[in-house]
Amino acid sequence: MDALEAIGTRRSVREFLAEDVQESLINDILEAGRWAPSGLNNQPWKFAVVKDRGLREKLAKCTKYGKTVMAAPVSIAVFLDSKEGYNRTKDVQAVGACIQNMLLATHALGLGAVWLGEIINQREEAEKVLNAPEGCELMAVIAIGKPVEKKRTSMRKRIGDITLG
Amino acid sequence: MDALEAIGTRRSVREFLAEDVQESLINDILEAGRWAPSGLNNQPWKFAVVKDRGLREKLAKCTKYGKTVMAAPVSIAVFLDSKEGYNRTKDVQAVGACIQNMLLATHALGLGAVWLGEIINQREEAEKVLNAPEGCELMAVIAIGKPVEKKRTSMRKRIGDITLG
Repeated sequence: MDALEAIGTRRSVREFLAEDVQESLINDILEAGRWAPSGLNNQPWKFAVVKDRGLREKLAKCTKYGKTVMAAPVSIAVFLDSKEGYNRTKDVQAVGACIQNMLLATHALGLGAVWLGEIINQREEAEKVLNAPEGCELMAVIAIGKPVEKKRTSMRKRIGDITLG
Repeated sequence: MDALEAIGTRRSVREFLAEDVQESLINDILEAGRWAPSGLNNQPWKFAVVKDRGLREKLAKCTKYGKTVMAAPVSIAVFLDSKEGYNRTKDVQAVGACIQNMLLATHALGLGAVWLGEIINQREEAEKVLNAPEGCELMAVIAIGKPVEKKRTSMRKRIGDITLG
């Protein structure tokens, strides 16, 4: 898929087929995250790939979007590793860039995904479930699967409304 | 350019040809930023496009990478608009996703760019230069131009070193 097309047509996908995602595709997605830019190239992100049903059930209890976590055969939890960080604002931006790389890759590979940020409101519980090491702060969970086919629309502000001057 | 290729081959570009960037390409880049995801779809970003030489000179004085700002015919300053924000961590991640969309689009369009984060260390001066409205916090400047051809390498940690468990 063309890069500009991927950027413009990616939509949040919350309904997934009851089919597994191939290991090689999960690796492609992680690989995309890996190539994100970061300040001083510090790469402050860590990933946890969650496929086990029991673990997904526990993770699902940490978010009001638990149904989506259960519907997705795989979730990638994304952490900011404070041991690698140097500036909170820059590091959190880098994690956002990393997540976007993974969302675009997912879409380009014909899969669907949704960025679950709400789960960080219960991040301590989620970090316990995920057995996150000391210093790893949950930033988001990306729920991934084969998308149920449907028309997905989304609105954006006009360029004129987000450009200064 | 293929999306996965764009993600994997994008590199920071700091040397630019002394040629302008077409207005339509700048719009394509802003359009890519516009389509980034954000929590509650709040789209908390604002952009300032800087082309004027006098303004670039003033902006260049706000960063130790001023030479890069001067070498690039256009820079896009990216702000977090606190009036649109709802959760700092999620909003800053969204801005990072937005910047990454713009960097990927730049690369896919055959242009080059570098993400300048260091400038936020002097953000108050830079915000004055850019005449940023109240509540708009500078997050980064993206310097953009036609790239000088050269081999650009970059290292990343191995997947095994950034994946937990």
